[in-house]
Parts: sequence; structure tokens; C-alpha cells
Amino acid sequence: MKARNVPNLIQKRFKSSSITNNLIFSNHQLLKVKTLDDIHSYQLLQDLGFIHQSNAGITHWLPLGLKTLRKLTSLIRKRMEEVGFEEFELSSLSNKSLWEKTGRWNNSELYKLKNDDNFCLAPTHEEEITELVRLQNPNYKNLPILTYQISRKYRYEKRPRMGLLRGREFLMKDAYSFDSSYNNAMKTYDLVNSAYYNFFKNDLKLPFEIAKADSGDIGGSMSHEWHFLNERGEDTLFKCDSCGTVSNVEKAVSLPLDDFEFAKEAEVRYLLSKDNETLISCYYPKGRVFSTGYLLEYIEDIDLSTLNLSNEKIFERFQSSEEDLILKKFIRVMDIRINDSTDLPDFPIKVFQKNNFSMVTDLSIVEPIENEICDECEEGKLHSEKAIEVGHTFYLGTKYSAALSAKFFSKDNKPEFFEMGCYGIGISRIIGAIAEISKDSQGFKWPAAISPFEFSLVVAPKVEASNVEDFKLTVNKSLSFNQIENDKISFGNKIRMNKMLGVPIIAIIGKEYPIIELEIRGKRWEQDKLKYEYEKLFELNGEEWNWRFEINENGIEKHFFHKDHFNAIVESLLKDL
Amino acid sequence: MKARNVPNLIQKRFKSSSITNNLIFSNHQLLKVKTLDDIHSYQLLQDLGFIHQSNAGITHWLPLGLKTLRKLTSLIRKRMEEVGFEEFELSSLSNKSLWEKTGRWNNSELYKLKNDDNFCLAPTHEEEITELVRLQNPNYKNLPILTYQISRKYRYEKRPRMGLLRGREFLMKDAYSFDSSYNNAMKTYDLVNSAYYNFFKNDLKLPFEIAKADSGDIGGSMSHEWHFLNERGEDTLFKCDSCGTVSNVEKAVSLPLDDFEFAKEAEVRYLLSKDNETLISCYYPKGRVFSTGYLLEYIEDIDLSTLNLSNEKIFERFQSSEEDLILKKFIRVMDIRINDSTDLPDFPIKVFQKNNFSMVTDLSIVEPIENEICDECEEGKLHSEKAIEVGHTFYLGTKYSAALSAKFFSKDNKPEFFEMGCYGIGISRIIGAIAEISKDSQGFKWPAAISPFEFSLVVAPKVEASNVEDFKLTVNKSLSFNQIENDKISFGNKIRMNKMLGVPIIAIIGKEYPIIELEIRGKRWEQDKLKYEYEKLFELNGEEWNWRFEINENGIEKHFFHKDHFNAIVESLLKDL
Repeated sequence: MKARNVPNLIQKRFKSSSITNNLIFSNHQLLKVKTLDDIHSYQLLQDLGFIHQSNAGITHWLPLGLKTLRKLTSLIRKRMEEVGFEEFELSSLSNKSLWEKTGRWNNSELYKLKNDDNFCLAPTHEEEITELVRLQNPNYKNLPILTYQISRKYRYEKRPRMGLLRGREFLMKDAYSFDSSYNNAMKTYDLVNSAYYNFFKNDLKLPFEIAKADSGDIGGSMSHEWHFLNERGEDTLFKCDSCGTVSNVEKAVSLPLDDFEFAKEAEVRYLLSKDNETLISCYYPKGRVFSTGYLLEYIEDIDLSTLNLSNEKIFERFQSSEEDLILKKFIRVMDIRINDSTDLPDFPIKVFQKNNFSMVTDLSIVEPIENEICDECEEGKLHSEKAIEVGHTFYLGTKYSAALSAKFFSKDNKPEFFEMGCYGIGISRIIGAIAEISKDSQGFKWPAAISPFEFSLVVAPKVEASNVEDFKLTVNKSLSFNQIENDKISFGNKIRMNKMLGVPIIAIIGKEYPIIELEIRGKRWEQDKLKYEYEKLFELNGEEWNWRFEINENGIEKHFFHKDHFNAIVESLLKDL
Repeated sequence: MKARNVPNLIQKRFKSSSITNNLIFSNHQLLKVKTLDDIHSYQLLQDLGFIHQSNAGITHWLPLGLKTLRKLTSLIRKRMEEVGFEEFELSSLSNKSLWEKTGRWNNSELYKLKNDDNFCLAPTHEEEITELVRLQNPNYKNLPILTYQISRKYRYEKRPRMGLLRGREFLMKDAYSFDSSYNNAMKTYDLVNSAYYNFFKNDLKLPFEIAKADSGDIGGSMSHEWHFLNERGEDTLFKCDSCGTVSNVEKAVSLPLDDFEFAKEAEVRYLLSKDNETLISCYYPKGRVFSTGYLLEYIEDIDLSTLNLSNEKIFERFQSSEEDLILKKFIRVMDIRINDSTDLPDFPIKVFQKNNFSMVTDLSIVEPIENEICDECEEGKLHSEKAIEVGHTFYLGTKYSAALSAKFFSKDNKPEFFEMGCYGIGISRIIGAIAEISKDSQGFKWPAAISPFEFSLVVAPKVEASNVEDFKLTVNKSLSFNQIENDKISFGNKIRMNKMLGVPIIAIIGKEYPIIELEIRGKRWEQDKLKYEYEKLFELNGEEWNWRFEINENGIEKHFFHKDHFNAIVESLLKDL
């Protein structure tokens, strides 16, 4: 082929708006189904052509889903950059040597490579980013260093399930901050939380909760989870009806009601001190679920790995250490719901020195149950909510910088460890979660900010093509739309399909053209708003524009107006959908 | 944390333009070096903070490199969508069962997972996309289905080298087309090539060649490579000085000069027929490199795997088949440069039937050498050029659709295999290649279309801050710029740093403000243009605007004008840089 002979064949074979003609609705059975109630949201995402699950936990993004994803990522980019974070893209291949230093190499959920023992597929990037920043040799003036990326992460999930909610490959926004002091790290922590707040509150506009959370394996001493409330969610939150504090069940601490009854019978849970020389036996009411509560703050040297061991294993380890049993120490911890008359299980050691024995009482060491008292305000009652976690912020302190010797030069030119934070948002997870919480018997309801299109265009039968072309010319370029142009699909089914898709507005061109009919499919999640944007516009111009709206007997909101007002009205409606 | 108490801490800690203050120039040694001639382009990419190579063949993209990458990908997106391709994002984890069907599972360059035997990290996606399209059960009306994606690919490269040019993880644009007939597939093939042409010619504007290429392992019968010319490139092209045809050395066919001398001595290369019952012995001049040329078209049933075997291995296989040696067949192929007086190596079989013996002569079966005659036009001479391959288009036919039973329903409602094509552009490779071909002793010269910034701003000493602020207010938002604000770096070094970075224009604010000085760092690669855009603008407005330009004794082009004309002049300059 000679360069000068290449023909200029450029032409648009497809309009980008007619994406829906091509691959979606491969499952035409959907149109035969009366209600989508029995179809799981992650199945519907597939049936509608947003994604294709090629294998359990593995997702191919199709054009429709990708449009949704792109809108979501650009919102997140904007929010991260508003608070000064810069975008990176670290490799997915991460070096073993770093993971060994932080003690995370032997995690069974790390995907490792057959060809090359030295790499894993990174599920998160604390190691690599810390090493990268370390190599820059920064000084205090270069701090904070604020980094984020949006990329595929990998986790060898043994039982991938619920589609995008728990996959082996998933999209994450992960951000990492490097500060010169605890106080600065806290400022950054608050900054990221404010960015998240704006993202969830002002961009997505969906109901969410921010919960105090356990830091888990990742380490660090402060962390918050960001949740969408949903009755099928895997997480349980407790929220106080007085002070409003929300905590993940693992972190929530409750007090018994004033008129509570002490437990008749107790169960015990053993833990060990870091030197394995002290047995900590925790007694709590039989039938309740053990939880550390504030215990780790009272007894600081607990070996955290023993939290995951059975009583038998712990006792075995306790007895196997070299020290003579008679010299060992014992701490008894009594849940506040236990008193002298509670039956305790037998203590396994019969001989010990009284001096080596101590006792902690009045702590709450069980997970809350509905209606117990909030430990935070000691006034309100706790209520549980099911939720889907979609974001997490961690203050990490020097856990990773110390493990990887990552230092900066302070004002006095001394090397000091970075104070770090890390901050995640599950991007693919959010799509899966919104699909789940927005789905009703007719399909999805995407928030306008991430809907693959701003509206759907449906043309009634026998409308002149010239009217449709005329209408399209009036639509602002910023308002993307789709149109199902298959003649074999009836008018009614086109409306049904667009409802399934979950695009917030359906615009119908009928015989009354240039009068346009809008049908609202989206949801106004913020139901406490004094006045919606479109209502303000209506007050100003409704009469002059001959704009009419109604809610019909099926609860469907419809608007009618001249096409010349289409852009203004649709843009105002989208602000609250 | 309570939602209602989250403080609104949003503030812009960093301007996005001051990215260069943060992580780049970590290698301050660069400023002490007189010339960058001895620094490899991939080392310079790292020293300047475009990328960080964490391990051999593995790249972290830093903010500066990411800006370049993003501009490149959005150009490619635009070009692919202009010709009707839709974007997908397939998982990097690809299932073994598909690769076994196409016979590509046992490729030693496939990265496989330790935890799960059933997956590889995909280096390319013919298998997955074909399976995905197969599952849609399309009919002829849905065709063509045109898909592309931009994503990380993986290849277990045993000797990763030259930074971005040969990595283990790399960014690719890969596109796949599914057509209903050969003719339609050819239309699509031309369409993609025209998109590539526009991308290389009109977006990047760098000198490139389109070469006929060998399809290699990927299969199919037509393919073209897209190359940047570069003397350190790993590929060799031959170009005809008459008809302009360009071919990769593996595909190039040359004829000897009219006054050539027949070879005195020959070498032999054995091949086998698919049934292993025919030995094909190819004789060519000693010292030349064997190449199949048109041989595969003359003898259609050659077992292609024997192209990679030694003569000994082939002869062994030939003798070991069940057939009696006396019944086997033999074909002798003689390069056109051999005649009766050429010494041939001894033939290893002494006993054969004359009837089983045939001969092919007058073929050219060696790689061309400089100045031989072009086989295409039989007039011009061939000249070799070194090049870096950055794109590849393949017509695949039904190779993959047949292997994976991927069919569509034809007009007659019969299932037929898709006619496929695949089309790659090495995204990270292009960045590495442009770094390599644009680098001079002062640094890079990015084409304006992918430069991380449109211009650099340098403020001369003692200029009032209010003038700088005033200037920034006049700059169009579409013109992004960087500014090194570190006071410890001298004015001269700031200019040097910006030249290293390779931003096409450096804008200097000095004492003469509001007169702006521009220094051109970029290169006008299209040197045959009758008139550059800025020259047209100058003719129209130069005098009125008091716009002055000069090329100084060091060959540096400078422009001087009032700040009110900054946007118009810079925008016109960028069009040719």
C-alpha cells in the first residue's frame, strides 16, 4: 500500500447514538417478561448489554456500560483534582520484594504469575507508590504528595459472586497521600473525605452513609467507610437515632438499655498478648457475637492475629511457649452485661498465682443489637441498616513508610517517615451497587450524572422523518441520546426498553410535533428538597412557554412543551434526577 | 463522622499547571550535563518524570507521561470512532478454553496465573472478542460489528528492553471487525487504514511508512505495518525509488540487476509439505538470507511450521514418516540468481524416482539487498530503511471465526463464519518511539498534538507578579501550560528544562511586558509544506500586530508580539508543530 493512494473513506457508518441497535437486547426474552422483579440486577446488566460476564468474577465492558463507567470516572477525577491529587497509572505487575517487606506477600488472595515468581497482580498499590515516592527523595517542601489512579485491580476471590460487587478483576480509584506530620495527614484525610462527600452528595445524589470502620488488614488507626443503603447489602451498619453516628457492625459499640437483665450464661473468647505470655479471656453473654469494641485500646499489646484463631488453637499456643505455666499472666475481661450471678464456662487452668491475675469489667465486647444504647452519645438507640460499601478512607500513619523505609527530609534536614493515608472508591462496584439499588420491576434508574445517555428518543408511528431530523437539530450537543431504530420493535416496546435501560428521561415525538412529550423515568432521590430546579424554571417560564406537566394514574410524570424549550427544560430536569 | 459535619475543605492546593514542581526533575544531575546525546530516550523519559520503570519491562506512568498518553489516546479514539468503531473494554483475564481452540495456549510468551490454571493475561483479544460476538447470534443486518479498546496487554518478554518499546506490560489500541463477506471485510480493512493514515499524517504529522508485512503468528493473508523511520529501529523496510512500494524485509521481494552475476555457490534450505511426504529444497546464493518471497503462493501446501526448523530436523521428520523413501516426492526450488554453473550442496537422497521429482525456477527466495530491482514495478531500485513499528493491520479471514465456530445468519438464514480483521496501535510504544525519534542534544520535541502542555511559561527575573497574573488571565483555557516556580532554578535553567521536556513553545515574560517572547522548541516535521499556518496569519496581521519573528544564529526561532495576540499566534504556530 502506498501512502499517497490511501483513499479517504472516512464516513460515519453508525451514529454513536444508535449504540442500542447493535449489541444490546441480545436477550429479546426480556420483552416477553411482565416484570423484572425476579431478574437480579447483575443479570439485567448483562441482558441489557452493559457488561458481559465472561467467567465468574470477570467482566467485559460493552459500549453501553463503558459510557456509564466513563461518566463515573470523570466525576471522580474532577473531585480528586479539586483537592489537589494528581493522577498516576501504576503497573498492575508489582514486585514481590516490596510485598515481603510489608508482610503481605503470603496473602492467598494475591494473584501470582506462573512464568515469573517475582510478581503479583496488584489488588492495591501501597507498596509500589510508597517505593516510588521514596525514590524521589522529597523534602518537607514537596509535601504533601497526593496521588491517585483509576485502574484494574485483581483479587483471587475464591467465590466470586453478585457480578460487579465481588469480582476477580475490578476497577478501583485508589489514592495515596504522603504528609510530613500527623496534623497534616489529618488535614489531608479530611480533605479526601470532603471530596468523597461532594461526589456522593452532589454528583450521584443517592442516599449514603459514612461509617466508622475497622481498618482490617490494611492497618492504620482511623478509617471510614462510604455506603449505599440497600436491604440486600452484605454490610451491617448501626446508626444512632440521636447523635446520628454510624458505625460498621465490627466497630459499633453499644450499651445495654437501662432496664436490661444481666446474662444468665456466658461464652468465652481467648486472645493472647504479643509475647504470648498473657491469656486474655473475654466473657460475654451467650448467644451474642463477640466484638473487640474498645478492648484494643484498654489492652494495647494484644496479638491481633489471635482474633482469627479458635479458642483451642490459642490455648495450644499459650501452653506451648517456653515459660512455665505457673509464671504466666491472665486477664479476665467481663462484658458489661455480665455480673456475679452469670454462669461462666470453666477456666482451663487450675493452678495459677493470684498476683498474675487481673480483671477488666464494664466494657462492651459484643456486636450491638437493635435498640441498644449508642456508646457515643449514651442517649440514642442504635438501629441496624444493611448496606453496600463503595468507598473507604484510611489514615495509615507510618505503617507502610516504616516498612519500606520511605522518608522525607524535615525542616531540620532529618529523615522522617511519611505520614500516609489511602483512599479507595470501588468504581465497577458502584455501577453494580447503583444497578442493584435503583432497579425496580421495569428496569434501572441511573442517576443523570452517570446515565449512559441524558435521554432516549422514541418516535411514535407515522411521524414524518423530517420532523425527527428537525428535532435532532434543536438538541444541544451536550445532551447525548439513544434511539432504537429497529422497525420491528413496537412503539410501546421501545418505551419499555428505554425504561429498562434506566435513562432518566424519555422524549417522545408524536403527531403533535413540534410539541414534545417527556416521560420521566429517573428518580429524585433527594426527596427533602424545598424546590427542584425544574419547578423554579416552571415558575419563571411555564406559562409563557405553554409548558404543561402531570403525574398520571400510574405515577408517571409527563411534560409537554414546544421543542424550542427542549434544551432548557431537559437540562433543568436532569439536575435533580 | 457524621455526614452533616463534614467540613467543606475544598481548595486547590496545587495548580495543575505546576505539575513540574513536584516529581519531575528528581534527577537534578540533568542540569549539570552539557548535552543529552549520551542519554537514551527511555532513560530521559524517566529522568524527566514522564514514567518510572519499576522493573525491567514494567512501567509506572507519572502525571507528566499520563498527560501525553491521554492526548494520544483521545486522538486514536476520535479516529476509530470516525470510521464507526465502538469502544469496549475486555477483561485482561482470558480463558484457556478459547486459546486452546485457536491453538495459541502453548505460547511461551503468554503470562499465566499461578492461582488459577484456566486464565492467561491477554496479550491480544481475538479469542475473547470473537467469543463475545458469537454469543450475540447476530445476523447479516447487524454487520459489520466494529469494536476497539485501549487497554493494558501482557507478554512474558524474556528480555524486556528499550523501555516502552519492548515491555512486559504495554498499552495497545486493538480493534476487531466482523464482516459478512470478503468484499465487506476489505472495505473495513481500507477504512481502518484510512483512519490510521489520518492519525499518523494529520494528527501526529511525523514521517511514517506503510509497509506490506508478513502476517506472522496471528494468521490471515493480508497485513500492513505502520512505521516511524528511525536509524535505531529494530525493523528493516525496503522502499522502491520508483513505484514507492514499501515492504518489511520479510515480505519484500527483489529481482537482481540486469547485469548481475549468477551465484558461484548455493546454500539450501529444506521445507516439507503438509503431509510431510514432499521435501522442498530451496537453493539460493551463498551468503544471502533465505526468504519465502512468493514461494508460498507457488507451492500452496507447505507446512509453515517447518519454516522455523533446521535442515537436520526437517530431514529427520521427512525420513521418519511411514511412507517408503522411494515413493516420496521432491521439489527443487532455484532462486533466480542461480544457474547451471552454480555449485549446489550435495543432495542427501541418492535413490529416487525421476517421476517424483519436479523443479521450480526463476523465483526470488532471498531477502533483498540495497539497490536490487523492485519486484512490484520491475523498474525502481530498492533501498533499505530502519524503522520502528507502531501499528499493524491484519485481514484475518475466517481463521478465528472458524476455530471458535463464530457465525452469523446470512440473508438466506444460513450460518456463516465471520470475515474478520484486527488492527493494532502500540500506544505506549508510540510514546517511546516519538521520544526516540524526536530527541536531540537538548531533549525531546513532542508533536503539539500529544505534548503534555501546549506551552511552557518562563518568567524572567525581577518581573512583577502582577504582570504574570495579568498574562495568565489572557491565555485561552484550551492552551494548557506548565511553569517551574522554584526560585532556586535560574532563568536559563528554566529555559533548558523546558527544552528538555519537549513542549513545543516556550513563552517568556520579561521586562518588555506586555510584549511576549516566544521561543520555538517544536519541529515542523512536514517540511514540504508550501505555507505554514502561522505564515498565513502573519501575512494577514503581522504588520498591524507589530509581530516580529527571527531565526537567530543558533537556529532558534523567536517571535515577539503584544500579549493580546498571544492566543491567535500560539494556536496558529501549534498547527504545524
